[in-house]
Parts: sequence; C-alpha cells; structure tokens
Amino acid sequence: MSIERLTERLDALGAIGDTGGDGNSRLALTSEDRAGRDLVVTWMRDLDLDITVDGIGNVIAVQPGFDPLVDPVMTGSHIDTVRTGGRYDGNLGVLAGLEVIETVQATGLDLDRPLAVGFFTNEEGARFAPDMLGSLVFAGGMQLEDALDISDVDGVTIGDELRRIGYAGIGACPARPPHAFVELHIEQGPVLEAEGVNVGAVTSVQGISWQELTIVGQSNHAGTTPMSMRHDAAYAAAAITTFVRDLAIRMGVPQVGTVGVTDLHPDLVNVVAATARMTVDLRNTDSQMLGDAEARLARFVSELADREGVTITSRRLARFEPVVFHDRVISLIEAAAETRGRSVRRMPSGAGHDAQMLARICPTAMIFVPSVGGISHNPAEHTAAADLHIGTEVLLDVMVELTRTRFDHRSGAERT
Amino acid sequence: MSIERLTERLDALGAIGDTGGDGNSRLALTSEDRAGRDLVVTWMRDLDLDITVDGIGNVIAVQPGFDPLVDPVMTGSHIDTVRTGGRYDGNLGVLAGLEVIETVQATGLDLDRPLAVGFFTNEEGARFAPDMLGSLVFAGGMQLEDALDISDVDGVTIGDELRRIGYAGIGACPARPPHAFVELHIEQGPVLEAEGVNVGAVTSVQGISWQELTIVGQSNHAGTTPMSMRHDAAYAAAAITTFVRDLAIRMGVPQVGTVGVTDLHPDLVNVVAATARMTVDLRNTDSQMLGDAEARLARFVSELADREGVTITSRRLARFEPVVFHDRVISLIEAAAETRGRSVRRMPSGAGHDAQMLARICPTAMIFVPSVGGISHNPAEHTAAADLHIGTEVLLDVMVELTRTRFDHRSGAERT
Repeated sequence: MSIERLTERLDALGAIGDTGGDGNSRLALTSEDRAGRDLVVTWMRDLDLDITVDGIGNVIAVQPGFDPLVDPVMTGSHIDTVRTGGRYDGNLGVLAGLEVIETVQATGLDLDRPLAVGFFTNEEGARFAPDMLGSLVFAGGMQLEDALDISDVDGVTIGDELRRIGYAGIGACPARPPHAFVELHIEQGPVLEAEGVNVGAVTSVQGISWQELTIVGQSNHAGTTPMSMRHDAAYAAAAITTFVRDLAIRMGVPQVGTVGVTDLHPDLVNVVAATARMTVDLRNTDSQMLGDAEARLARFVSELADREGVTITSRRLARFEPVVFHDRVISLIEAAAETRGRSVRRMPSGAGHDAQMLARICPTAMIFVPSVGGISHNPAEHTAAADLHIGTEVLLDVMVELTRTRFDHRSGAERT
Repeated sequence: MSIERLTERLDALGAIGDTGGDGNSRLALTSEDRAGRDLVVTWMRDLDLDITVDGIGNVIAVQPGFDPLVDPVMTGSHIDTVRTGGRYDGNLGVLAGLEVIETVQATGLDLDRPLAVGFFTNEEGARFAPDMLGSLVFAGGMQLEDALDISDVDGVTIGDELRRIGYAGIGACPARPPHAFVELHIEQGPVLEAEGVNVGAVTSVQGISWQELTIVGQSNHAGTTPMSMRHDAAYAAAAITTFVRDLAIRMGVPQVGTVGVTDLHPDLVNVVAATARMTVDLRNTDSQMLGDAEARLARFVSELADREGVTITSRRLARFEPVVFHDRVISLIEAAAETRGRSVRRMPSGAGHDAQMLARICPTAMIFVPSVGGISHNPAEHTAAADLHIGTEVLLDVMVELTRTRFDHRSGAERT
C-alpha cells in the first residue's frame, strides 16, 4: 500500500471546505459535501468499482466480477464534518478503504468475496438530527421516507438536498447486509497516545444518556439573605456537577460523566441564582451500569431538591443503549496488529460511529488509531502519517481475513 | 404622623418611572430621576425648609431658624433606583424623613437642634460606579472633581448630567458633618419577617469581598476522555461553588458566601468545559473574619488548581471593609422601639447604604423594617403599611432624642 497516496487523498479531500490550518467544514448535503462526494466517487470510478447510491445518499463501491449473492466484506465511514472539523474524522475510514482495495487489486490477490467501501450520509448530525442517519437507514433502523422528511434549522429537508446535489439514489434501504463490516477511525480521545499503543481493537460503543436539568430556586440578595434561608440554584447545580464527577470515579472505568452546560439566571455577582439549566452526559459500555448511574443520579437530585427547597425537573435529551461489537472480528483485529508487530489494546469507543449501526445487521468491529492530544472536531485534529499507515495495514489484513471467515450466525453483535 | 400622607407620597414618587406592577426605574441623573427629584424638592419647599444642592447633586433640606453653627440631626437616603427596582428601597428613608419633620412642625415641638432630610446622588450604582457615590463625596471619601468626571457606559459624565437636569449645586463637598445621622430603610432581606420582629437596629454593614475567578482547563470529548485524564473547568467551578457555601456555613453567622455568576465555554452537552468564569461574593461584619474567609478560599483554589491540572486566576472586583455603627445611636433605636411596644433586634446590614458613608463623619446608625419575602431590587419589593408606620415612628423618636444627645467624640463609628 501507499501511505503517500492515502495522505495525498486526505489532503485533496481536506482542500474542499478548507477553513484554514487543516480545518474542514463540509456539513452534510451542502455544496461542499457534494464536491467532497464527487471527488471520492471519482476515485471509486478510477478503481472500476461498482458504485451504488441508495435512497438516503449512502455511496457504496464494491469490487466487480463476483456473484451478486456473495456478500462483500465492507468498510467505510463518512465524509461529512462538523462546522469546525478536522480532516481525519470519517475521511480516514473511507480513504483507507479505497487504499485497501487498490492495494488488493494491484497485488492480484484472489479473494473469495468482494471488498466494498462506502460513505454514509450525515454521520455527524451537525446539520440534521439524528447523527449516524445514513447508516441507521442502511441498517433498517429508520424508514427511508421518515429520514427524507427531516429538515435542518432552515426547514430544508434531506430529500430536497439529496435531489439538489444529485445524490438521491435508487439503491434499496434497508440494504442487503454485508458479510462483515470493519471501520477504521481516529480514536478522538487520548488513551492510545497516552499509553503509547499503536492500535485500538474497539469492543463496544458506550451507551449514552443525556439529560437536561432545570433547577428553580429563589433569587435573593447575596448580602442580606442568611445561608440558612437560601434556595440557591447555582449551589444545587454545583452539587450535581461534583456528584456526577465523583459518581463516575467511584464507579470506575468505563463509566464517564460530564456536566458541560451550566447557565445561571440572573448570573449576577450579588444575586443568589434563581434558576440554573444544566446538562448531564453519562456513558457506559454496560447497559445495566449505565442505568445504575442514572438511578443514582436521580436519587441524589431528588434528595438535593428536598434539602435545598428547590425544584429540579429533568428532560431526556438522548438515550442510546451500548453496542457490543463482534468478538470474532475484534480478535481478528488484535491478531492482525500483533502479526504486524504493532501494540494493540481492546477499548470501548466513547463516541458514536456508523459501525454501531452496521453491528445491527452483520459481524462488525472497529480499528482505532491515536489522536494527537486526544483532540477531534477541531482544526487541530491530527494523526501521524505512521499511525495512518499502521491502521490501514491492519484494516487490509482484517478485511482479507474476513473474506475467508465463516460466521455461524450473522448477528452483528455478540454479548461477550 | 400620617401614614396616609407617607404612602401617598410613596405612590406619587413611584408613579415617576413606573414600569408597571409597582416596578420603578429611575436610574441616577436620568430625566426620570430629575422628575423624582423635582417632586421631592416641591415637598421640601412645602415645609419651608432651607434647601441646599451640593456639587455632586445631593439635596439637603434643613429646618430653618436655627443658628447655622448648631448642626442638624439628619436623616435621608436616596431616590434613584436600579433598572427594575421597587418603590421602597431608598424612597422610604427620604419620604419618612419628610414625614418626621412635618409631624414635628405640626406639633410645634421645640428642639435644641434642627432636623434635616436629604437624598444622595447615585446610591444604587446601577448607572455610575461606584455605588453610594453622593454620600461618599458628601463625607469626603472622594474628591468632587473626580466624581464629576465619572462616566456611564455611553461616556456621559456625572458632571454633564447634573448640569443637564439642573442639579449641579453650589453646596460644599465634603459637607460640614451633621450632629448625627440615622437612616430608615427596608431590610431587603428575610430575617425580620421570618422572625416576626418589627424593627431592626442595624449595628454594622458587612464588609464585601468580590472576586472574579477565571479557570482554564482543557476542552475534551465527554465520551472519549477518561475521568483521570480530564482538566475540567466546569468541575473546578462547581467545586469552588460548593466550597464557598460550605465555608460560609462552617464559619457561621454573619459570614455569607455566594457564587452568582458561572459562565462555561464552550457550554456544550458533550464537551468537557475548557474555561469557566465565575464570581465569589464573601461578606462579614468582622474585618478579620472576612480576611480569613478570603484566605481559606485562596488556599482551596490553589490546591484545586494543582489537583485538577487547571490554572485559576483571580481578579478583585470590589473590597469594602465592614462598617460598625455608633453604639449610642443603636441603643436609642432599640429604646425607641421598645417604648413604642415594638419588637426589635440588633442585626447587621448585608447591603450597602448611604449611612455607612455618613458613619465616617458623625454618630450614625440605621433602622430596618421588614421586606415581604426578603425581596428587593424587584417590582415585587413590598413592605406593609403598618411596618412603614412603625419604622417612621421610631425614626421620629430617635431623631428627636438625638437633638438632646451629647456625644463625647464625634467619630461616626464605634468599635464595639
């Protein structure tokens, strides 16, 4: 394989929607996204792949010349970005897939099954909700008609935009499941870099619980109101924030908990806050532990409200169950890395990815490569060329191995 | 005295800058403030008082017919309001003073000293900083020239506005100190109402320490960043908020502590906060205890910054030493309330008042009456007519008694 070709393609794709300093902005189904899609499709055509655009605009390219009933081993990711994104998130998985197929074709390797690479529509969810929409529809998790009616903040629908940019395809949704799916992605976190490990064999995607808490206390004068007579929404928000952090540490890895939003009102130096709006983000790879964390938080919030004489209401913003990847595919990733002499560790994904949707319909796992400083969704997002190389080689080996692998049952996830 | 006349005057003054529902907006030196001033001056003239407007626009009305070297017993307060104020804060003290003088004149009581009532410019500080400016200049705490040059956010100076509204007077600043000063004011806190006490004999004004803390952590993905690798500015802000509250409770009355402002960045549900800006308001009537609270907070902040790997910088926003009122005047207030059969308690003031400036130059104290729900700086600010009556009667008795009181020394404050 050619690391030069891969990085040249990353650069060429990154030049579309370039925001300066390695920054990228190609929101889903915008004209920038169309230009990015057109470029990747050109490269797919250069490899003489069979290209299908489906009803939600996912683009899948399959090696030609195989019996159509022999399902491909598929890889892929997305090429849409957040508004101020980098050039690796998503793009790497798609372009590494192209590199794998080009390498296999150049070596004349004779495979039992075709390889396929695709990119899915609106993975980021930065323009249309929910995120991972294209792969969700691909896997049958949402009706195509419902998806096409989703509109952005300006009222423009996905259906309108797909027609406008020429990606309203005729491929079926849900799609015929591939034989297996494996996605290469940057970690978007600090663990691999901090531990000096080359490759992550991703075992699962964390379940996510997002809630918004609204605290109503009483606005009071910061000088004249004794501590014992206060109903301080800012204090209640702070107590919840420290509880969430202590809870996650007490429960231990892989539980994480974050309060990212706190808005006080009136937000004045000498006024006890009347109200606070805050969010709590809880994640765990274990469904029961995630539910336990939610229950413990709810209990604390209820006791706090009683103690402080404030009312606290909760609104669910998002709730996704954890996804567990296929143990056989995970093991193949470990084995491939070790055979290449690379250090590897099993790890969960803290972020959502298209692979978690594919896991519903076929054996699936993911390969992570290190993110410098753990930074992502940011122009400073970076992964060293050597790590791109390592990840792509592992992807190549795993995909080839998967063409020879028989699965006793075709469920995407195994409860390991 | 006439409670009807007092409430009618409160209503008439409240009709100027009426914002609906008992709300009042007469920011200092605006046209609304001028209209309020003109109305109160009319009432002063109706009583044939000698009226002086000084260089900073304070208006002082003194009973005529006394030797100019016999200093008056003075009362007063302010008639400017915050942007969304009520109709009792300040106004009560001025109009009750008028009522006291009118009652004394009607009864033909022969006093050894004249009574005086005044209103001071820009007490609220809602338009020009600092607050309590008029009384500060009156007491010699700031040069008149410096005060006149202070401008509002639009660059308009106090000097300009005083000339525009016709209140750039010729009375001397600093003024000749009165014999004594006593101010009637609503409590602006919940203590008197909660304890069912009629009158507060105010012993002191809390010292105030305001600081702004800026916390710089590191923005990270809420899913992919392990708890142990975070530098979470939101958590640090929350830990400080709960510390401030616990510190105040541990130190006990009269220590209070408030975090009223917390602004996170980027303030997103799934991003560990990079930065937080917050304020800490600490108050105590004891100078040493206030300094102790500041020192304990600084120690906690320093340890927290080390532990969390964040930087925390502090900027002082305000710092006022506590003011202790004159014990003899406080005792007169207690005695007057008891003689009238009213319940009374000594208490500190959590808010700043003109009386604390007058305490620099003459024996001074304050009378508090209950605030319904402890609410102030709000259209819902209210004090029952019966409590206005009680407070004004006590003010009358104390002022008359002060005309007969000799002070061994003229310092405003006694360290009791």
